[in-house]
Amino acid sequence: MSEDLWSIDNLPYGVASTADGQAQVVTRLGDDIIQLATLAGLDNVRKWARCFQQDSLNAFLAQGNSSWSAARSWLQQILQDDRRRDLVARATRPIEDVTLHLPVQVADYVDFYASEQHATNVGSIFRPDGAALTPNWKHLPIGYHGRSGTVVVSGTDIRRPVGQRKGKDDPEPVFGPSVRLDIEAELGFVVGGATAIGERVPTDAAAEHLFGVALFNDWSARDIQAWEYVPLGPFLGKSFASSISAWVTPFEALVAAKIPLPQQDPQPLDYLRGANLFGLDIDFEVRLNDTVISRPPYQQMYWSPAQMLAHLTVGGASLRNGDLFASGTVSGDARDERGSLLELAWSGAEPVELADGTTRSFLQDGDRVTITATAPGVAGGRIALGEVSGTILPSTAG
Amino acid sequence: MSEDLWSIDNLPYGVASTADGQAQVVTRLGDDIIQLATLAGLDNVRKWARCFQQDSLNAFLAQGNSSWSAARSWLQQILQDDRRRDLVARATRPIEDVTLHLPVQVADYVDFYASEQHATNVGSIFRPDGAALTPNWKHLPIGYHGRSGTVVVSGTDIRRPVGQRKGKDDPEPVFGPSVRLDIEAELGFVVGGATAIGERVPTDAAAEHLFGVALFNDWSARDIQAWEYVPLGPFLGKSFASSISAWVTPFEALVAAKIPLPQQDPQPLDYLRGANLFGLDIDFEVRLNDTVISRPPYQQMYWSPAQMLAHLTVGGASLRNGDLFASGTVSGDARDERGSLLELAWSGAEPVELADGTTRSFLQDGDRVTITATAPGVAGGRIALGEVSGTILPSTAG
Repeated sequence: MSEDLWSIDNLPYGVASTADGQAQVVTRLGDDIIQLATLAGLDNVRKWARCFQQDSLNAFLAQGNSSWSAARSWLQQILQDDRRRDLVARATRPIEDVTLHLPVQVADYVDFYASEQHATNVGSIFRPDGAALTPNWKHLPIGYHGRSGTVVVSGTDIRRPVGQRKGKDDPEPVFGPSVRLDIEAELGFVVGGATAIGERVPTDAAAEHLFGVALFNDWSARDIQAWEYVPLGPFLGKSFASSISAWVTPFEALVAAKIPLPQQDPQPLDYLRGANLFGLDIDFEVRLNDTVISRPPYQQMYWSPAQMLAHLTVGGASLRNGDLFASGTVSGDARDERGSLLELAWSGAEPVELADGTTRSFLQDGDRVTITATAPGVAGGRIALGEVSGTILPSTAG
Repeated sequence: MSEDLWSIDNLPYGVASTADGQAQVVTRLGDDIIQLATLAGLDNVRKWARCFQQDSLNAFLAQGNSSWSAARSWLQQILQDDRRRDLVARATRPIEDVTLHLPVQVADYVDFYASEQHATNVGSIFRPDGAALTPNWKHLPIGYHGRSGTVVVSGTDIRRPVGQRKGKDDPEPVFGPSVRLDIEAELGFVVGGATAIGERVPTDAAAEHLFGVALFNDWSARDIQAWEYVPLGPFLGKSFASSISAWVTPFEALVAAKIPLPQQDPQPLDYLRGANLFGLDIDFEVRLNDTVISRPPYQQMYWSPAQMLAHLTVGGASLRNGDLFASGTVSGDARDERGSLLELAWSGAEPVELADGTTRSFLQDGDRVTITATAPGVAGGRIALGEVSGTILPSTAG
């Protein structure tokens, strides 16, 4: 199975080191890791050797869209060339011999809120007395900045955060470990081709800057968030850690995954329209310990990544290489398609049952969450988008 | 006057280049710029030569508190040593011969909301039907992440942003240049001595990480902000640009500026208490073209920088060298002490009169805003905290 999911049609990018070598940019083919700086050096392609001899994708992201395409062509060619099999072998390591690192040095990180189902669910839970969707929701992709310094690579343990919370029956706020620690299954978009302040990226030019996608878990302390977020948005409820997959799948591997968006009604303003709006045919799977608790369908997401990027830049904000924006929680229509425990257990009213007979409304210490996803490959079959996982460690203080 | 404001008791840090040389860390004495990498090289202090031979303060910020103190001692000593006057002269340039650059490569940028008067004024204007202060305001220093990639150095022109807005009489959102472009006069805090995820900074340890202060103007498009900010906070209303002074004044120059905080009632939770909480005796002046429109008193700010840092990290968020957090708008009790036009002109109801006979509710194209501030120096007199200025350019698109 692995060979299909990690075929020549996939070729995601990551950063890995071996026990005896510095970190460099790598790809994965089956269960092998190909060291791309090493490979480019052996093949005498200086430009790629330089770009890939880095401990992040950022230098490669700076090259821009045509270089990303050229690099993929070079890579697909050399990996399928029987005459260069020995050369490739010298740059190949078994996956168990490498350590995968954070793939991108994250510049600015923005989290969107692009699932209508998720926004409706959360609005119903957090603001039961008002309309579930705020009046702006269908007019613009709502987003906010998160903490880029606490984006961590898949596999990093997550320490339960502490902070203030105030339940509706608490006379005063109380301090302590979060008792409503949650996940958010999201898709992350990695940005390259930096722009200057004032240079907008219209929807039709988004492809010039959208390098690839990663899986993303925006860990959320719902109790901390609920108390702090009015009026300036989430802060400590989200800033303790956000996990990203070690693999970034380039958009060129996702050509067959592009699908029409759901109908947008009302039609958004001109700058959010375009010929190149697309959704993505990506199936998520969320596993809590040994139980698949949800299968969120990215297919149902309301806003296109091209719209999110156009909105992000329309006011004049520049892009840097390594900017990251995430879709917001992916939730579908069905109950078992929701991308957060808050929604799956409806704020504790309907706990989720696990295979071991226990139930969860929120995460317990020791729980391990693994999010995986697949998409159709360009030549049929499916490709893997890697995984993002993390285990909850107990808080260090009361 | 300049000599007093930029005396040996001040010695702020910045980054500057000359026509014939690379950017390096500098300080200012009177109207002279001292090139610190050059000076350290001539004085054979390798550690400082290496730290200061950078185009940002970040390497110096990484050294931590004891090194900051040692560097200042070395600098004050050499600048006052008659025997080394010739050596110092070789590292000295007239201020008009240098270009000042962004002093810090900003890692994460957080904006707080620490003025009770500002929060009360804005709450009254934005949410006239509710309580002016949200229930959480006196329990925690409210903050949110902003866009670090669009922090620009003083003197950078500011392009009027475009975006969506929806006035209460608009049936649908409209798109175009912001018609309510505003300033926010703030104090910025530059952070060093990076920490790991999970490592909290209690209020009593804040001095280990608080390197210095800068003046900050958080340009704000009030119409864009008002339409977008519920429920996840400000985004495009703030992300187009934030200006920072070229000079960062180290906390060691502000010893005489430390004053008690205003009374905090209710008393905050334990992690926000401490023996080292202080306010700052800093007088701001906001000039719009040729008119001083406000003199915001930092003395009245509710939350201490030590409390903001303790709150920022209490959930487990790490600090990076070059993190920047800002106080939020500084507004005092009196009308002419408010730090934004939104408050000064009360959302357009009471336009501000300028010396040329015109009035302003918000900024017009061509307007120039300059924020300056002074604080008491350690040996009497006052020291300058530099300035942050910017001129509004017209929007490029409708």
